[in-house]
Amino acid sequence: MEFSNYFPIWDKLDAQQQEVLRSSALERTAKKGTLIHRGSMDCLGLVIVVSGRLRAYSLSPDGKEVTLYRLLERDTCLLSAACMMSGMQFELMIEAERDTAFYIVPPDVFKNLMNSSAVIANYANELMATRFSEVMWLMEQIMWKSLDKRIAGFLLEESLLEGTKILKITHEQIANHLGSAREVVTRMLKYFQSEGLVRITRGTVEITDEKRLGDLLDDE
Amino acid sequence: MEFSNYFPIWDKLDAQQQEVLRSSALERTAKKGTLIHRGSMDCLGLVIVVSGRLRAYSLSPDGKEVTLYRLLERDTCLLSAACMMSGMQFELMIEAERDTAFYIVPPDVFKNLMNSSAVIANYANELMATRFSEVMWLMEQIMWKSLDKRIAGFLLEESLLEGTKILKITHEQIANHLGSAREVVTRMLKYFQSEGLVRITRGTVEITDEKRLGDLLDDE
Repeated sequence: MEFSNYFPIWDKLDAQQQEVLRSSALERTAKKGTLIHRGSMDCLGLVIVVSGRLRAYSLSPDGKEVTLYRLLERDTCLLSAACMMSGMQFELMIEAERDTAFYIVPPDVFKNLMNSSAVIANYANELMATRFSEVMWLMEQIMWKSLDKRIAGFLLEESLLEGTKILKITHEQIANHLGSAREVVTRMLKYFQSEGLVRITRGTVEITDEKRLGDLLDDE
Repeated sequence: MEFSNYFPIWDKLDAQQQEVLRSSALERTAKKGTLIHRGSMDCLGLVIVVSGRLRAYSLSPDGKEVTLYRLLERDTCLLSAACMMSGMQFELMIEAERDTAFYIVPPDVFKNLMNSSAVIANYANELMATRFSEVMWLMEQIMWKSLDKRIAGFLLEESLLEGTKILKITHEQIANHLGSAREVVTRMLKYFQSEGLVRITRGTVEITDEKRLGDLLDDE
């Protein structure tokens, strides 16, 4: 796929800006398990996933991890260029969760474009707002906890009752069982799926890692 | 103080942009305890504190709170204008923690300026990056730090904000700030008291050994 297709704002850029982006972008690959960004020591630049999957996570002083978000094909990550954002100060690790091919727009190139173009600055803004929203959501889950446990508990109980790991149930039905909203349940199930706990298809939820789903219940 | 002094980027704006900002800004006041922004139902705009103090917090489905950040004099909040940021989706409450005077730049005005000016778009970017960093820090505290450190840190910060070692605050309020339960906070404060770090009376917590309370923070 053409490099330009990775930028939803491509057509709003002038020919010179397009040329700067195209000519500066680097093609890179990383083997599964490779760390491509190590907190504030690194300043990789804007990362755009071509194929494979990246995982952004936060690392505790004693080595615990929490997944902040995944980057799939065509996803763009601004936080790997935190060094070029004033006011952005935090440690983020990014690893290739599968063999991954990606573009890098070097930080100085992107910063120059941001400083000279409102279109690009607003695009950066949108990228950041999206990640910010994801992290806020995750933090709320972590703080208020109850819902992930309640959904995990519900799925395990249903599985036991029905004698199968493939539950024929809609998100709406789960929400109704728990007195929650369908959208909230869908979001949580997608999060579970990204963690490899369940697999969602139309009309079913399959438990793919009963052990770890059960672990959610114990965690205080 | 002149309105322009609240914008670190003022001198980089042209005369017309300055005029748009100055003429659209609204002066508002809110009594202590007033909610000035209620999640995504509201779109207040860019908020700039002139005097007093605002508190931004997140609210759980069952009414628990956690303080995300405070806005003091000259602080600017972009998240109260989340509606104008593509990709920004989260619920944020803002209340006046004291009697507060503030400016509001209406969301449509600020959005227009952002769309037409790289300087303003990058300023918005910086405001967002700063809050994002604070929230990430907070999430890390919640995830990786034990509650004793969080309570110690909170008491010391409050003491600094209020300019006194005798804090007029209930255990319930501390719990709300930290997204914890009152009983848990009470237990920890009693432990602190038995260690000679604080003295608890009805409605107050007095810091009696600032040094050792601070030492708790360093200990990994």
